[in-house]
Amino acid sequence: MISGKTTLIAHIGYPTEGFRAPMVYNPWFEKHGIDAVVMPMGVLAEDYPASLQAIFKFTNIRGALVTMPHKVTTIGLVDECSTTARIAGSANAILKRPDGTLLGDMFDGTGFTRGLRRKGFVFSGATCLVIGSGGVGSAIAASLAAEGVASLALCDTHTLSAEGLASRLHTYYPQIEVKITSADPAGYDLVVNGTPLGMKPDDPLPFDITRLSPATFVGEVVMKTEVTPLVNAARERGCRTQVGTDMLFEMIPAYLEFFGFGTSTPEELRSVATIQF
Amino acid sequence: MISGKTTLIAHIGYPTEGFRAPMVYNPWFEKHGIDAVVMPMGVLAEDYPASLQAIFKFTNIRGALVTMPHKVTTIGLVDECSTTARIAGSANAILKRPDGTLLGDMFDGTGFTRGLRRKGFVFSGATCLVIGSGGVGSAIAASLAAEGVASLALCDTHTLSAEGLASRLHTYYPQIEVKITSADPAGYDLVVNGTPLGMKPDDPLPFDITRLSPATFVGEVVMKTEVTPLVNAARERGCRTQVGTDMLFEMIPAYLEFFGFGTSTPEELRSVATIQF
Repeated sequence: MISGKTTLIAHIGYPTEGFRAPMVYNPWFEKHGIDAVVMPMGVLAEDYPASLQAIFKFTNIRGALVTMPHKVTTIGLVDECSTTARIAGSANAILKRPDGTLLGDMFDGTGFTRGLRRKGFVFSGATCLVIGSGGVGSAIAASLAAEGVASLALCDTHTLSAEGLASRLHTYYPQIEVKITSADPAGYDLVVNGTPLGMKPDDPLPFDITRLSPATFVGEVVMKTEVTPLVNAARERGCRTQVGTDMLFEMIPAYLEFFGFGTSTPEELRSVATIQF
Repeated sequence: MISGKTTLIAHIGYPTEGFRAPMVYNPWFEKHGIDAVVMPMGVLAEDYPASLQAIFKFTNIRGALVTMPHKVTTIGLVDECSTTARIAGSANAILKRPDGTLLGDMFDGTGFTRGLRRKGFVFSGATCLVIGSGGVGSAIAASLAAEGVASLALCDTHTLSAEGLASRLHTYYPQIEVKITSADPAGYDLVVNGTPLGMKPDDPLPFDITRLSPATFVGEVVMKTEVTPLVNAARERGCRTQVGTDMLFEMIPAYLEFFGFGTSTPEELRSVATIQF
């Protein structure tokens, strides 16, 4: 029940119609008696800098969930960014600290690696291929680096994107082997689809599935459908997999911790969510 | 249930802790299946102009409830104001019209006059004394003028406030007799306490109760307690009365109509409210 004492978490993006976070966070807050609410605020790209400044002057705001099209812009608008956000080149979370300064962080990749850890994936020494060096691919590469993998192979149809990400990874994690490569999945412990391929029904698979070993763990970011054609094909080959919505539900506890609300589990969050994923 | 499709009504003021509108509007929206939510946003005076601009750029905003300390400032920040708001010198409601322009209105007085009409008070030809020419007193005077009363006697310890209000009333309603007078309640059809007297337990009554005729209707704006000492004393003298919370609950249907959500009644609103008044 919203009142004048309710803590506000702004959910900022445009368009807002597809936002799903309110239907997960708000029931969870209610279940735990936490007087906070995630409230969508539709903000156009050109309005974002001024809007963000105004929103964080609200006296009852604690933080923001940031989504398209503002994740990249956020980096330049907060006072400080986590290493992960700096490597990712984008932020999807903003915390207002007690001194009023804004801290940006990026949890897309954190959700991904939390899910992998829960599924028993061993990061230490792992060789990883991340296909796609856009927002989510970069975020996942940053989080994999933070987990101490041995190597990161990057690939993107825009070579400059992959090169930029490689450079940022090298700056913060010089001990990790980073290379630009093709989408050939052979020989890796982990292959990640960080591209939008799988969003549309007639999309090709992001890589040649016949080159995929059953020993390789396949991670998917697309969550348009729970089990994408890639996840399906990988499972048929005997691979362990992680679906896009796992990443989403693993991410939320990281957000809750970041905002100081305690924590949760994907299982609990799926059980309280009032929408289907 | 808040989602990305939810229409936002900002509840802007500071401090927010005492806000009660969310606990009336939101249960009413829920009861009627209206996907809208009143969300408190604490905004300091110095941040208000920029914040208001940013808030009304939200793509999912329809309007705002404006409260202390922003009601006066609002007049200068919207594109157009109702006559009532211009006379009151303040606005407590903002509507974003389809063309994006902002319309300001003031419903404090509307709530008061709606309540009086429901109680059978006849405005035509009525002689009225409004004690206090601050925000709420001015708003009530403006709404009484709109209802076609015969005369308005104004009184305020700050004579300039009363004179300013008299001048604004005269501009828009030259046919109404307006005068500055004392707080002597004798001889009026209606006497209104538009001062804060009654907020504190040891406040004196706003006028000499022994001078009050049983034929006079007494209106109260203080809603700290349902029945203030003034209302109690007036009832003991046999006067008809209206309490402050009546004004509040009568005001909300005016807001709902202004925002295009339909309408309600004080009885229904009191029945859905999740707080005690």
